[in-house]
Amino acid sequence: MEVDIIIKNGKIVTPSSIVEAGIAIDKGRFVAIAEEQNLPTAREVVNAKGNYILPGIIDEHVHTLDMGMAETNENFITGSMAAAAGGVTTVFEMPLCIPATTTLRAFQQKREVADKKFIVDFAFWGGAVPGNIDEIPKMVDAGAIGFKAMMAGSVPGVFEVLDDGMLLDAFRMIADCESVATVHAENEVILNHLMKKMKAESKKDIHAFFEACPVLEEVEAISRAAMLAEEARCRLHIVHVSCPQGVEIVYKRREEGREITCETGPHYLALSQEDGDRLGPYLKFAPPVRSKEETEKLWEQLAEGKIEALGSDHGPHPKENKEKGWADIWEAGNGAIALESFLPVLLSEGVNKGRISIQNLVSLVCENPAKLFGIYPQKGTIQVGSDADLVIVDMNKEGVIDAQKFHSLHKHSPFDGLEIKGMPVLTMVRGKVVAEEGNVTGEPGYGKFVRP
Amino acid sequence: MEVDIIIKNGKIVTPSSIVEAGIAIDKGRFVAIAEEQNLPTAREVVNAKGNYILPGIIDEHVHTLDMGMAETNENFITGSMAAAAGGVTTVFEMPLCIPATTTLRAFQQKREVADKKFIVDFAFWGGAVPGNIDEIPKMVDAGAIGFKAMMAGSVPGVFEVLDDGMLLDAFRMIADCESVATVHAENEVILNHLMKKMKAESKKDIHAFFEACPVLEEVEAISRAAMLAEEARCRLHIVHVSCPQGVEIVYKRREEGREITCETGPHYLALSQEDGDRLGPYLKFAPPVRSKEETEKLWEQLAEGKIEALGSDHGPHPKENKEKGWADIWEAGNGAIALESFLPVLLSEGVNKGRISIQNLVSLVCENPAKLFGIYPQKGTIQVGSDADLVIVDMNKEGVIDAQKFHSLHKHSPFDGLEIKGMPVLTMVRGKVVAEEGNVTGEPGYGKFVRP
Amino acid sequence: MEVDIIIKNGKIVTPSSIVEAGIAIDKGRFVAIAEEQNLPTAREVVNAKGNYILPGIIDEHVHTLDMGMAETNENFITGSMAAAAGGVTTVFEMPLCIPATTTLRAFQQKREVADKKFIVDFAFWGGAVPGNIDEIPKMVDAGAIGFKAMMAGSVPGVFEVLDDGMLLDAFRMIADCESVATVHAENEVILNHLMKKMKAESKKDIHAFFEACPVLEEVEAISRAAMLAEEARCRLHIVHVSCPQGVEIVYKRREEGREITCETGPHYLALSQEDGDRLGPYLKFAPPVRSKEETEKLWEQLAEGKIEALGSDHGPHPKENKEKGWADIWEAGNGAIALESFLPVLLSEGVNKGRISIQNLVSLVCENPAKLFGIYPQKGTIQVGSDADLVIVDMNKEGVIDAQKFHSLHKHSPFDGLEIKGMPVLTMVRGKVVAEEGNVTGEPGYGKFVRP
Amino acid sequence: MEVDIIIKNGKIVTPSSIVEAGIAIDKGRFVAIAEEQNLPTAREVVNAKGNYILPGIIDEHVHTLDMGMAETNENFITGSMAAAAGGVTTVFEMPLCIPATTTLRAFQQKREVADKKFIVDFAFWGGAVPGNIDEIPKMVDAGAIGFKAMMAGSVPGVFEVLDDGMLLDAFRMIADCESVATVHAENEVILNHLMKKMKAESKKDIHAFFEACPVLEEVEAISRAAMLAEEARCRLHIVHVSCPQGVEIVYKRREEGREITCETGPHYLALSQEDGDRLGPYLKFAPPVRSKEETEKLWEQLAEGKIEALGSDHGPHPKENKEKGWADIWEAGNGAIALESFLPVLLSEGVNKGRISIQNLVSLVCENPAKLFGIYPQKGTIQVGSDADLVIVDMNKEGVIDAQKFHSLHKHSPFDGLEIKGMPVLTMVRGKVVAEEGNVTGEPGYGKFVRP
Repeated sequence: MEVDIIIKNGKIVTPSSIVEAGIAIDKGRFVAIAEEQNLPTAREVVNAKGNYILPGIIDEHVHTLDMGMAETNENFITGSMAAAAGGVTTVFEMPLCIPATTTLRAFQQKREVADKKFIVDFAFWGGAVPGNIDEIPKMVDAGAIGFKAMMAGSVPGVFEVLDDGMLLDAFRMIADCESVATVHAENEVILNHLMKKMKAESKKDIHAFFEACPVLEEVEAISRAAMLAEEARCRLHIVHVSCPQGVEIVYKRREEGREITCETGPHYLALSQEDGDRLGPYLKFAPPVRSKEETEKLWEQLAEGKIEALGSDHGPHPKENKEKGWADIWEAGNGAIALESFLPVLLSEGVNKGRISIQNLVSLVCENPAKLFGIYPQKGTIQVGSDADLVIVDMNKEGVIDAQKFHSLHKHSPFDGLEIKGMPVLTMVRGKVVAEEGNVTGEPGYGKFVRP
Repeated sequence: MEVDIIIKNGKIVTPSSIVEAGIAIDKGRFVAIAEEQNLPTAREVVNAKGNYILPGIIDEHVHTLDMGMAETNENFITGSMAAAAGGVTTVFEMPLCIPATTTLRAFQQKREVADKKFIVDFAFWGGAVPGNIDEIPKMVDAGAIGFKAMMAGSVPGVFEVLDDGMLLDAFRMIADCESVATVHAENEVILNHLMKKMKAESKKDIHAFFEACPVLEEVEAISRAAMLAEEARCRLHIVHVSCPQGVEIVYKRREEGREITCETGPHYLALSQEDGDRLGPYLKFAPPVRSKEETEKLWEQLAEGKIEALGSDHGPHPKENKEKGWADIWEAGNGAIALESFLPVLLSEGVNKGRISIQNLVSLVCENPAKLFGIYPQKGTIQVGSDADLVIVDMNKEGVIDAQKFHSLHKHSPFDGLEIKGMPVLTMVRGKVVAEEGNVTGEPGYGKFVRP
Repeated sequence: MEVDIIIKNGKIVTPSSIVEAGIAIDKGRFVAIAEEQNLPTAREVVNAKGNYILPGIIDEHVHTLDMGMAETNENFITGSMAAAAGGVTTVFEMPLCIPATTTLRAFQQKREVADKKFIVDFAFWGGAVPGNIDEIPKMVDAGAIGFKAMMAGSVPGVFEVLDDGMLLDAFRMIADCESVATVHAENEVILNHLMKKMKAESKKDIHAFFEACPVLEEVEAISRAAMLAEEARCRLHIVHVSCPQGVEIVYKRREEGREITCETGPHYLALSQEDGDRLGPYLKFAPPVRSKEETEKLWEQLAEGKIEALGSDHGPHPKENKEKGWADIWEAGNGAIALESFLPVLLSEGVNKGRISIQNLVSLVCENPAKLFGIYPQKGTIQVGSDADLVIVDMNKEGVIDAQKFHSLHKHSPFDGLEIKGMPVLTMVRGKVVAEEGNVTGEPGYGKFVRP
Repeated sequence: MEVDIIIKNGKIVTPSSIVEAGIAIDKGRFVAIAEEQNLPTAREVVNAKGNYILPGIIDEHVHTLDMGMAETNENFITGSMAAAAGGVTTVFEMPLCIPATTTLRAFQQKREVADKKFIVDFAFWGGAVPGNIDEIPKMVDAGAIGFKAMMAGSVPGVFEVLDDGMLLDAFRMIADCESVATVHAENEVILNHLMKKMKAESKKDIHAFFEACPVLEEVEAISRAAMLAEEARCRLHIVHVSCPQGVEIVYKRREEGREITCETGPHYLALSQEDGDRLGPYLKFAPPVRSKEETEKLWEQLAEGKIEALGSDHGPHPKENKEKGWADIWEAGNGAIALESFLPVLLSEGVNKGRISIQNLVSLVCENPAKLFGIYPQKGTIQVGSDADLVIVDMNKEGVIDAQKFHSLHKHSPFDGLEIKGMPVLTMVRGKVVAEEGNVTGEPGYGKFVRP
C-alpha cells in the first residue's frame, strides 16, 4: 500500500538505542519502521541526510498567552511558529493568561482560540487559584494535562497565590481527579521581604534581584510543597527548579517512595549570575539563575537521571518592558523568550559539549514528559501507531542564536548571540512538515489539542 | 569550719551515676560532697531518709505571666509557689505576657516585678516580634536566656507572629548575639484554614480542635524553621514538640551537624487524643496532644536521647475560661496549668513505669537545659561551687494530682485525679528550703535572676 | 521486496509500551515493524493470534554442562532444547563444567562443542579460579560475556574458590579488561562450619541444609564482594541473590554510585522454606530459598526496579542423585532443573498474579541483561536491525509444569505439578522457529555464539 | 575525722565541667570533694599547684606480657612502672601472652603472677581462640573484662585466628555471658596475599608493609565482624581502628541501633605513613598508620564523639628485633612501646594543640572505658566512694619523649624525640602516689585486680 511519506537515510534516536532505519507515515501516524528496502512505497520521500531523527519535542512549560495579551506579549500563532521552527511539536500551555485558565469556561474559550491558531499540537495546564477548587474536576474532564498553582508571584485579579491551606485542599482535589499538580515554588513572604529591603536600599540592578531570591527561598518552598502533596497523596511535579539543592530535595523524597518529579530548563543550565552585568533584565525570571558552579551541578544531575524533564518556561514581554530593567530592575517583567532556542541550546550546550547524550535528551524532552502526563505513546516516541511527530537535527550545523529572526512576537533573548552547534532542520507534526531550516511551513489551525 | 547545712542519708543522682554521699552547703552554694563522717559540721542537718537527691529542676518553658494578667491568670508569687512545691528551682519565664517581653524596657520592668515576687530563681526569654529586632541585642545584654518567636498563634497587639522573612532576620540577629532562638512551630496558614473549616461545619468539640491541628502543620513548621535557622547559622531549640515525627526531623538535622535541639513535655507524654472526651477543653493547648501510639513513641525517643529537654509549658487560664470550651472549644484559651505537676508526672509515668531512668531525668530537666542555655554549672548539677539547688524525691510516695491543692492562681489540670507514685518532698534553692511536703516555705523576693 | 517472514496479529511488548504492529524478518534480522498493511510481502506468515510478542528471552545464568557431564547431567542439545521449548533464545553458559571454562583452551574447546550442538544462541561466562588470572584477558578476546568466581562451593580440582586476595586480583584484571564480574556469594567458612555442626548433630533433612545457610552467610559475602569490587573499580553483578536483605545491600551501594547490580530467579520467588517437607532435596540449591515472607519482599523489589535481572540457575543432576537427599540431604547435589520452566513460572506467578507487569518482565529478561552484558541492541529488543529473536506468549493458556515432558536430560523439578497460566507458544531465533507449542523444531548447530 | 590525704589547689576535670575544689581520700577511696576550708583534716597534704586533676587514666589496650616473655619482651613490673610514670592507673592486659589467656587455668596463673608484680591496678581480657569456647564462661566468672579474638595475625600454637564460623560461635557465647567482644580486625587472607606479593617482589621496607595492609583489608574486616556480632547480638568493641573509614562504619551501625563501639590510639593520631622513611620498623604495627590526611580526620572524629575510647596498644619487642626491620621489614615484630608516652602525646598533640578538650580526654580515657567495661564508678571518675585513682597534669610543662628514660624493659619508641607540652606530674592509685615527676614510687604487688 502506498503511504503518505517515507523518511530515509536517518538515525532514529530512542532512549536506549540509535536505530538506522526508515520511517513510513500515513494519515499522520507512524505506520512502519523498517530497513529502507522494506518500507512501503510513498507519495513523498524525505531524505534525512544521515542526521538524527528524534521524536517531536514536547515543551511542557510554555506561556504563549494570546487572548488578552495577544497583541502585547505573544499569541498562539507567533508562539507556535516559534515552536515549529525550534523543533517543538507539542506545547503545554500554562494557565497564566488573560483570562486565566482557572475555570471550565476560560478553558473552553482558550480552546476555541487555540484550535484556530496553533500550528503545532498543544495541551493545556489548568490553574489552581483561590476559590476555583470546584472547577478542577471540570477542567480534568475537559482534558487538562495537570494543574499549576503559584506559591509566590501573584498576578492580582488574574492568577493569585494559594496559601498553604488552600494548596493542601487543591492537592487533595487534584489527587482525587488522578491528575498531577505543579507549583511555582518560591517562598513569597521571604521574596517580598527581601525585595522590599532591596528597594529600601535603592538597589536596582539585576544583582539586587538575585539577592532578593536566594536559594533558600526556593528550596524551602519546594520542601513545603512536597510535604503538603505527600499529605494529600498527590503527584507533584516541581517546575523550573533552578538549583541543584532543589533537585536533591525532590530526588531524595522520590527515592523514599513519594510521587514527586521535577523540571529544569536551558536557562538554568546555560546561563548564570556571572552573566548578570552583560544581560541585565534579560536574566530576570523567577526563580533566577544561580552560580556557574551550581549550573554545572545541574548538568550532572541531568546526566544522572535525577531530573525528569526540561521546559523552556517561554514567558514573553515586549522589549521595552525588559529594557526598563536596565535603569530599575523592578520595572522589568519576569520571563524570557525561550521557545525557539530551547532545542538548539540543549543540542549545543548539552549534547555536543558532552554533558548529556542525545539519548538522555530524548528521555528528557520526549519520552519522560509524555509518560508523566499520560500522553505516551501517542506522543514522545517514534513507534508504529504513534503520532508522526518528529524533528530531524543536524548535529554539525553551526549558527548563532539570533533573536531578530525569532518567530515570537518580540525579538530578544538572554541567549542572543550564542554560538550554536547542533540545530533542528525539519519539524514534522502528525506527518506534516511544519518547519524546515528555520522556515515555518505549518498553518494556524493545524495544531490539535492533546489530552491525557 | 562550720557550714550552714548538711544533708545526710541521701543518694545524689547525676546523669551518669548515683552516689551515696552527704552534701554540705554554705552561703547558698555546695561546698562539699563527702562521706558523712567527712562532712564539715553544720548549723542545720537535713535528713534525706534514704531518698534520691536531684539537682534542682529547671523548667525551661513557663508562663507565670503577672503584671497585666496578675489578677486574672497567674502571677510570679502564685506561679513560683507552684514551682517550689513541685520541685522546680529555676523557671524560664516566657515573654508572652502583658506587656510582652519584647523591648529592653519591658524586660527591665518585668525584672523589677519578678525581683520582688519570685520565690525560686528565674530567667527570662526575650521575644522576637515584628519590628523589635534592635531590641534583641539589648535584651541579650540585660540577660535574656534566649528568644522566642511565634510562627502561629499571634496575640494581636501583644505578641505577633513573625513571617518567614522577619524570622530569618531575627535568627540572624540572634546568631550575631550568640544567643539561642526558639519557635512556636505551627503553620499558621494551615491552622487558620482548618479552623475556619471546622467552624463553618459547626464543629465545636475538642476533636474539632485536634482536626484543625494535624501533625503535618506542626512538622512543616519545624522543618521550615530549621531551614531558616540553618541559613542564618542560628542555634535553634524547638519547644513543645508534640509528635515523634517532629522529633525525627530535629534529630536528623542534628545528626547532619546542625545546631538544633528540641523539647517536649509531660502533657505530650502522659495524655493523648484518646482522653479528649474525658478532658475536653483541658486538653486545649497548642500544638495539641497526639495519639496514644505517638505518645509511646515519644517516650522511646526520650530514652534514646533524641530529645534534649522537657518543659511544662505552664499556661494558666481561669477555670471559667476553660469551661466555656465544653460548649464551644473555640471559646476556651490555649494552655494548661502544669508547673506543679511537672516533676510528679515525670517521676510517676516516666521513672517509676520504667520508661526512662532517674539519671535520664536528671539529664533532661537539670543538666541539659543548664548547658543549652549557658547556666551550667551554676545550675543543673550538684557539685562543689554550684548553686545549692536541689530536690529530694521519694520514689515510693503515693498520691493523687489534686488541682484544688495547686498553688497556682487557678485550680484545674488535665492531670487532675491522676494517681501518682514518686513525689518531691523537699525543694531547696541556694541552700534555703523553699518547699517541704507540698508546703511552700520560701518567700517572695528570695528568687534571683539567672543569666547565661 | 519480499522478506522471509512476517508476523501478524500480535502485540509487541517493550519495556515502555505495547505496540500493535506486524513484524517483518529477513535474513535473521528484524527488518520492519509496521502496521500490517504496510509490511512487505513475505514467503511465510506467522499468525500471533492476538498474543504478546516478547523479545527472545535471555537466561543469563545456565549450566548446560555437556562435555565431561554430557551423559550424566546435561548436554548442549538437551539443554538448548529445554531453552527453546521454554522461550529462551539466548543462554549464558556458566563455566562450571568439565573441563571448567577457565582457560582460553577450554573456552575454545567448549566453543567447538557448542557450535555443533546448540539450538538457541549462546554466550559463555569465563571462570576466575586460583592461578588462571592471565587467562582472563585471553578469554575476553575470545568473547567471554563476563567472569564468574566462587566465594564458596569449590568443586575440588575443577573449579575452586577464590580467596579474598585472589578475588581482588581477579576483579582488578576483569576491570582492566572492561568486562564484568559475578560471584557466587556465600561465606564458605560459615557454611562449612555450620554444615559440620549439622552433620555432627546427625541432622540430615532439607531443614538442616537451610539452617546451614542462614541469610547472614549470604549477605556477608555480598557485602564483602561489593567492597572488594569497589576497591578494584570492577563492575559486579551478584547472581542468584536469594533474599531481600541481599538486594538491599546491592541497591544501596548502587544508589551511592557504585557499578553493582544483581539477579534473582523464579526459584527464590515462587518457592520457600515452607515447601521444605514437600520437596526435600529438590529444594537443595545454593543459596537456598528463604521464607515465604522474604519471597514476597523479593517480588516487591522486582517491581520497584531494585533487581536488574533474572536467571534460572538451571543446574541439572540425575534424579537418583537428588533422591538420595531424602535420606541424607548432604548426599544430594546442589541445583535444580529450571530452564524450561523459567518463563512459564514468571508469566504465571509474576505477570498473571499481578506482581510484575509484562513490561517489567521484558526489562528483566530481555533488555536489562542484553545491556548489562553489552549485547544490546543485537539481543533483547524487537527493533529494526536486531536479531530476530522472539517468543510469542499466550497469557491465557493454562497448564501444569510436568517434569516428565522436560527436554532436559533429567525429568524432575521443584515446580513439578505447579499449575500455570501463561505459556510460551512459539520461540524464534534469528528468524527461525525453534519451538512451537512445546515441540522443539530447531536443530543442533543452529545456535550461534554471541559476544559482547 | 582525720583522713589519709587531701589534695588542694587543683582543678578537677570531669566530662562536663572543671571544678575548683579540694579532694579528701581515705582508705583508698575518695571521701570528699569540697572547698578547701571544708575538707576534713588529713595526715598528708598534696599541693596540686593549680594543675588539672584527672581521674586515673585507663589504658584499655596493653600487652605487658610477662611470664613466657618476661625476660625478653616485657613484664608486669617494668610494664606497670611505665604505666605509673605515664599517668595510667588501670591497665587492661591483653591475652596474647605465653601462655595465652585462653583458659581458666591460664587466667588464674596470670592472675597469680600479676597480683605479685603490678604496681597499678589491672584487668584481664580473655582470649577467644579455636577450641576454647567452653572456657569463656569460666573466665567471665573469674573476672575477665571482655574477650579478644584475632581475625588476622595468628601466633601459631599460642593464639590463633578464629575463622568466621568460630567467631560467630564465640560472639554467641560472649553475648550469653553478657560480656563484650573485641576483635583485631584485619582480613587475614588479603593481608597474606599482599605480603606474599611484596616478598615475591623483594619489597622489604616499611612502605611495602603499608602496601600490604591497605585500608580496604581493615574496613572489610570491621564490617564483617560487625555483621557477625549483630547476628549473635553481641556487644562489640573494635580496637585499634587506624582509619576514619573504619570509624564511619562503626558509627553508622551504632546510629542504626547496634551495640558497637571503637577505639583508636595516639599512634594513629600523631604518626602517619609520611613518617615511614624516618621511623622505618618503629612504625611496624598492625593495622598500620595511615596518611596524614586520614590522621587529621581521626582527630575530628574524636572531637565529634564518633570514637569512644583510646588505647596505647603497648606491644613491646627488643630493640634488636625492631632494628632488623631496617634491612627487611618482614623480620621486625609488630608493635610499639607506647604505654609511658600514651597520656603525654594525647595532652600535647590533642589538648594543647586544640584538637580535643581536656574534658573530651577525660571521657575517652577515664569515663568511657570504665562504663563500657562495667567498672564505673569504681574507676574512671573522681567522686565520693570511687577508688582514689588520679593523675595531676601540668599542661604547661614542656619536655621531650625520651625512650632511654622509659621504664619499659626496652628503650625505643616511634615518638622518641617528640617535643611535648603537657605532662603528668603525679599519679595516684587508690590513695597512694605511685609516680611523681617521672619517678616511680609504687611497689610491685600494690596493684589490684579489677573486675566488671
